[in-house]
Amino acid sequence: MTEKDAVLAANLEFYRAFASRDFPAMNALWSRAAPVLCIHPGWPALNGREAVMQSWRNILTNPEPTRVMCYDDQAFLYGEFAVVVCEEELAEGHLVATNMFVLEGGKWRMVHHQASPLVARRQTARPQRRNR
Amino acid sequence: MTEKDAVLAANLEFYRAFASRDFPAMNALWSRAAPVLCIHPGWPALNGREAVMQSWRNILTNPEPTRVMCYDDQAFLYGEFAVVVCEEELAEGHLVATNMFVLEGGKWRMVHHQASPLVARRQTARPQRRNR
Repeated sequence: MTEKDAVLAANLEFYRAFASRDFPAMNALWSRAAPVLCIHPGWPALNGREAVMQSWRNILTNPEPTRVMCYDDQAFLYGEFAVVVCEEELAEGHLVATNMFVLEGGKWRMVHHQASPLVARRQTARPQRRNR
Repeated sequence: MTEKDAVLAANLEFYRAFASRDFPAMNALWSRAAPVLCIHPGWPALNGREAVMQSWRNILTNPEPTRVMCYDDQAFLYGEFAVVVCEEELAEGHLVATNMFVLEGGKWRMVHHQASPLVARRQTARPQRRNR
């Protein structure tokens, strides 16, 4: 497995935890050593692990589950930092997301997520779907 | 000047170039060695320096200039990678942005920008304005 594959696997684990409302897995995925941020669609930036994980706890314990699929995921490496850009398909529409990771104890841990509405669509064939 | 100050200065240079439609400065600010990405509001991700700089050339040569101010800018360091989250005030409304930088030849160069609409506002006092 290349380092890019490892980053993409961490990214898919994020969407698996998100779609299956697995808060322990989501909590384990986010860094404990590096600064942690998150920008949910329409929200101001959340800063710090406590605020970010509380937001995920609220989202994942919502009685109305979020159907989310990730596709067109691409990873970019910057030494021990990595960025994934991807698109998300939800019941409400399509989003475009940036997910950021740091290499921590040999594992890629999440440090930032920003998702925002996608208005223009790419002129491409049907996207490759990932994660359900 | 601390490293965080240097990152915030690079971030302000981005908004200065943006607001003053200074394409050469914008072009100089973005990395030439690292992978470059950009997600404009509502757009899919642009990947690669050529596509990203072409988008900025189009935006900055638009006859209708963009009035943009950056505020609440906060920098986070991850070794030779840095993330700034900030809010943007434009004529059309408020956005929340993530700007990413790598240390390249002793200078912080931009590698990613994602801006998206801000719906919820923070419960804070009037934000500190930066850059006009």
